[in-house]
Amino acid sequence: MTDSLPDTMPAVIFRGEGVLALEQHAVPVITEPDDIIIKVGAVGICGSDLHALHTPPTHPGLPGVIFGHEFCGEIVAAGPQARGLSVGDRVAVDQNPPCGRCGPCRDGHGNFCEPLFDNPHLDIPWPNTPGFFWDGGMATYVKVPSYYAYRVTADVPYEHLVLAEPLGCVLNGINKAGVVVGDRAVVLGGGPMGLLAVIALKHFGVEQVILVEPAVKRAEVAKQAGADLVLDPASVDVREEVLAATGGRGATLVFEAVGSQLDTAVDVAADQARIVVIGINNSYRANLSAMTVTIKELRILGAFLMRYTMRESLDLIQSGKLPLERVVSHVLPLSDIHKGISLAQAGEGLKIVFKP
Amino acid sequence: MTDSLPDTMPAVIFRGEGVLALEQHAVPVITEPDDIIIKVGAVGICGSDLHALHTPPTHPGLPGVIFGHEFCGEIVAAGPQARGLSVGDRVAVDQNPPCGRCGPCRDGHGNFCEPLFDNPHLDIPWPNTPGFFWDGGMATYVKVPSYYAYRVTADVPYEHLVLAEPLGCVLNGINKAGVVVGDRAVVLGGGPMGLLAVIALKHFGVEQVILVEPAVKRAEVAKQAGADLVLDPASVDVREEVLAATGGRGATLVFEAVGSQLDTAVDVAADQARIVVIGINNSYRANLSAMTVTIKELRILGAFLMRYTMRESLDLIQSGKLPLERVVSHVLPLSDIHKGISLAQAGEGLKIVFKP
Amino acid sequence: MTDSLPDTMPAVIFRGEGVLALEQHAVPVITEPDDIIIKVGAVGICGSDLHALHTPPTHPGLPGVIFGHEFCGEIVAAGPQARGLSVGDRVAVDQNPPCGRCGPCRDGHGNFCEPLFDNPHLDIPWPNTPGFFWDGGMATYVKVPSYYAYRVTADVPYEHLVLAEPLGCVLNGINKAGVVVGDRAVVLGGGPMGLLAVIALKHFGVEQVILVEPAVKRAEVAKQAGADLVLDPASVDVREEVLAATGGRGATLVFEAVGSQLDTAVDVAADQARIVVIGINNSYRANLSAMTVTIKELRILGAFLMRYTMRESLDLIQSGKLPLERVVSHVLPLSDIHKGISLAQAGEGLKIVFKP
Amino acid sequence: MTDSLPDTMPAVIFRGEGVLALEQHAVPVITEPDDIIIKVGAVGICGSDLHALHTPPTHPGLPGVIFGHEFCGEIVAAGPQARGLSVGDRVAVDQNPPCGRCGPCRDGHGNFCEPLFDNPHLDIPWPNTPGFFWDGGMATYVKVPSYYAYRVTADVPYEHLVLAEPLGCVLNGINKAGVVVGDRAVVLGGGPMGLLAVIALKHFGVEQVILVEPAVKRAEVAKQAGADLVLDPASVDVREEVLAATGGRGATLVFEAVGSQLDTAVDVAADQARIVVIGINNSYRANLSAMTVTIKELRILGAFLMRYTMRESLDLIQSGKLPLERVVSHVLPLSDIHKGISLAQAGEGLKIVFKP
Repeated sequence: MTDSLPDTMPAVIFRGEGVLALEQHAVPVITEPDDIIIKVGAVGICGSDLHALHTPPTHPGLPGVIFGHEFCGEIVAAGPQARGLSVGDRVAVDQNPPCGRCGPCRDGHGNFCEPLFDNPHLDIPWPNTPGFFWDGGMATYVKVPSYYAYRVTADVPYEHLVLAEPLGCVLNGINKAGVVVGDRAVVLGGGPMGLLAVIALKHFGVEQVILVEPAVKRAEVAKQAGADLVLDPASVDVREEVLAATGGRGATLVFEAVGSQLDTAVDVAADQARIVVIGINNSYRANLSAMTVTIKELRILGAFLMRYTMRESLDLIQSGKLPLERVVSHVLPLSDIHKGISLAQAGEGLKIVFKP
Repeated sequence: MTDSLPDTMPAVIFRGEGVLALEQHAVPVITEPDDIIIKVGAVGICGSDLHALHTPPTHPGLPGVIFGHEFCGEIVAAGPQARGLSVGDRVAVDQNPPCGRCGPCRDGHGNFCEPLFDNPHLDIPWPNTPGFFWDGGMATYVKVPSYYAYRVTADVPYEHLVLAEPLGCVLNGINKAGVVVGDRAVVLGGGPMGLLAVIALKHFGVEQVILVEPAVKRAEVAKQAGADLVLDPASVDVREEVLAATGGRGATLVFEAVGSQLDTAVDVAADQARIVVIGINNSYRANLSAMTVTIKELRILGAFLMRYTMRESLDLIQSGKLPLERVVSHVLPLSDIHKGISLAQAGEGLKIVFKP
Repeated sequence: MTDSLPDTMPAVIFRGEGVLALEQHAVPVITEPDDIIIKVGAVGICGSDLHALHTPPTHPGLPGVIFGHEFCGEIVAAGPQARGLSVGDRVAVDQNPPCGRCGPCRDGHGNFCEPLFDNPHLDIPWPNTPGFFWDGGMATYVKVPSYYAYRVTADVPYEHLVLAEPLGCVLNGINKAGVVVGDRAVVLGGGPMGLLAVIALKHFGVEQVILVEPAVKRAEVAKQAGADLVLDPASVDVREEVLAATGGRGATLVFEAVGSQLDTAVDVAADQARIVVIGINNSYRANLSAMTVTIKELRILGAFLMRYTMRESLDLIQSGKLPLERVVSHVLPLSDIHKGISLAQAGEGLKIVFKP
Repeated sequence: MTDSLPDTMPAVIFRGEGVLALEQHAVPVITEPDDIIIKVGAVGICGSDLHALHTPPTHPGLPGVIFGHEFCGEIVAAGPQARGLSVGDRVAVDQNPPCGRCGPCRDGHGNFCEPLFDNPHLDIPWPNTPGFFWDGGMATYVKVPSYYAYRVTADVPYEHLVLAEPLGCVLNGINKAGVVVGDRAVVLGGGPMGLLAVIALKHFGVEQVILVEPAVKRAEVAKQAGADLVLDPASVDVREEVLAATGGRGATLVFEAVGSQLDTAVDVAADQARIVVIGINNSYRANLSAMTVTIKELRILGAFLMRYTMRESLDLIQSGKLPLERVVSHVLPLSDIHKGISLAQAGEGLKIVFKP
């Protein structure tokens, strides 16, 4: 099949110093027996993409590689060892899959996979992700090892499938906390991750989900997506409002999806609440009462990346029951890359997706 | 049987302002149908006793009541509804038992029992504990409702039975964290609670238990009680030493038994470690990296008082398999109350017990 | 308030040998300080009621007591120690509450409460339930200790509140199994318990719920209540159909709500499935392959009565989000007691409720 | 290094029809980049080996392959992609490792790995294990992919390292059940698996471990290894004796390590007991009261093979704290293969190990 592919394609190249360039680039070819080549159906902008585009960058990336790590599409070529996958299959991609055979993987801790974090381009442990360190998905075609890909059978749009990995990260957190009858939840932060948390918690029957988010537009979207109440931290006392809304008890489940609100999470938590921490902010240090953790018997649960949750996430997306159209605010052609990045940097919209 | 009791007895009365007075006091009489009267076999000094004796006090207490809440002994009188208990039974006492019938109790959260915390003597929720708010155990006899008492069948000394509640608090924490094969544990603080944590963790097969404790004497006792390594935080870099001792991985299980070391707990924790927080220090605020909680997938688990663990604790004590003689540093007659309190205030020894 | 109550009331008396008699009976009066008297709002027929009415009976009961144990209503009189409850409160009733203070209760195992099972009328352990061993709720008024009652604040009909205990039993099972993303569930038996299981599983986001039930009417109701598929075991091969409907995997969660279908549960289970067993049938013995339990890594989980789930159940009912009107097939006046029992015995309808 | 290996070696070849032949065989050579060649330090006889030697066989096996799947040794040659392993390393071997990349592996269910069970030599799913379907360890040298091997650092004898996989299977079961304070355990069956269960449960602090085993020699060994009580089912009523030994409560934790005793497990279980089923017997069907499962709230937990527990098992073996010398009854030279098999078939001894 590979011979039918063109020689070059348009691709968004990371040039360093905040620069992305839309250029013609060679189409990838299969070199390893378990390689597959995917015709990209959709590719999203992630928060870490914006960090990589900062000047100076706050996320590492290698100049010269094709940008974009949240992508999906259709297989157009497959090596002989691409087990269980065929040309023509529609696939979602886990851009950070565990190797399955290192120490942590053999202990059942795939999201601490050693080869994944053993990044040859950096001196610190960091996921060796396509789109940052080798060619990613902002192009017509992308090549990955076959075990990065998951076959999709349901007729769901590509712009929803790019949410598989972010939703899988949220599910990692939900799996750790569990959902119990009578839960009242607070989600801190209404960006794409927080909004996916709102949607997933409502789907799993959580009686009341309160979002804390200052941006008016995001608040509106969250309400349309099922949030029972949205609090603007700039104008109300969040703790007082949460207590009032929960009959004085506080939230039994808190989702920290910002990275800088663990203090607030502890403040709004009910006795024996679970606090899931998925936010990442390198510069933030929480200032919290350890005694409150003890006497409320809080459980603070970090959740990092996906943890065997990609298939669960795809199951959920393929069920068609989540209002994911609320999460995807813009679908643009790849030629609008600069417009899309500008929208994302301005905090306009939520998930911005390109269809190459 | 009650008629054979004397009219008065020696008792240690809390007089407020740091004053304890050993005086003659009326012997209690049964007034409710489920009351029992216990001839005190042993009564311990708890850290909260010292807080109540501070000037000004850092733990509330009612002047005029008989002091002491960690006690056990033999039943000498029992009301008609003292179900399952008889005169002559040796009993350990849970000084903060759940009522069993309020909202939290009916939800299975007995350590958040509303009547227990609905203290008529204070404006804030606080356990209405004997020895602080009604007559406690530093006397020849003490009266409690029968559901405070647990029958003891094994021939273990009373000075070990007073450890039932503190050990039960440690077991609450262990139950929350679980013990898994390959655990390497760090216990922060080598007072009675930390030492009980060391002992319990070794009993449950934890391969390596490292204690962090500056006091030389406590370090020695901990080693005799089974600690594999004791680190003095005043003279070594605790994080470096823990990493060195655990093959670079860090501790998979951390017990914070001080109240002011949650930062350290996060620092020494391995990926996916569980951190149990049982320490209580009202003035401490942790300053910690929330991002570390996320990317290590830490679980920080508060454990407050006992949680249905008194019987488990007594089972363990009655097994005779724990080196509890290491925890009890002094056994004194009640007439030595002032000497005992001074020893405790000086931080000499560990658990100090009186036998009235 | 008590003085305003009449002296007598209509009541359904169990006369033994399958006989129920609608008679005038003395109205109860408060005798213990924590007694409450409830004006019955609704009272349901339970499967165990039918067993008690068998000739010979297959459930014990004391001739002469007022029948009916699933009831709710409004408090019309309250003793001085009826903590947290007042005349005028609408309440649901847990007819088998734990005492909160015996051995199992102090271990956190309230559904194994010793006094509850220490039935003075029988030689075997059996819940000492009102409606079987002391006066129950098929009458205008009923008296219970206050800790049997839960205050209801939402405006939900009494005929839904009588479902609190059966739903609480289902929630005990769901709590044991958990619900995870991607679950495909099979419920065995479409009576009131099985139908509540279907409704609860759909509410908690289970993607696919398959009911196995031969009765055509019950199958129809289940579909209206949300079942994705109903299989008639008399006309299809249940295992084959479940495999076909689940992509060959089998059910990841099975609810045995009949008492005689554990074999089938094992047959339809996927690898690592959880099988919840709530059915009770004294005469049935399962004949199953233990090797299948091993090599599929099944988890078979018994769930008996409620386990700290009454409040959770009431929360859910008060949310108004469950289609409980599907479960209650008939609402009759108490004077139609014989008609209602006949309907129930004929297997017509589902939950049959009287409003006295 | 490979060039220093001899051309041939003695090896035990499975000839089918119950026949093993000790012959000269070609020494393996590295063909894949992640292959390693191990000089065998020890190789054990497993129960499944005896099943394969039955006439007719009750376990499949391919005539012509080198027998033996429980082996360990020292690496004498390694391909260029044998990540983290070097010539000279001592290694234990997981003979059934998950691939890490198939559907079940990506869901975190490595012991249901599809390629592992996708056996090209059989029509049914069955682990494609060395020693049955390709050359195993009853020889001087054996070749496996590097991800089968775990580096061993502690100075423990090879005859203990062959226990890593069986112990890892026991740990899979223990992880599922957990160990809680106050547990009283019954282990059904005192063969190598049951004996390892006894040893592990005692190590993790289980207060009382009762073994049910008829063979006098095995009973003696179990007592030496820590069993508190051994019951002979041929001469006592097991249920009565367990109740008597546990104060009438029954066993809170039961380990079925025979394959044909699930009925007994249910009979001896206390309320809310966990029953772990690791035994495998294709011809046995349990006949048990499903109602007992409900009203005791039993949890029956199948555990199949290892589940991410090989490293845990090796940690425990390397700690040197388990009396594994009790499990290994015979250490023989490989030339005594026929004697060893005869001993095993006669039920003499426990684990029989060869040192080639």
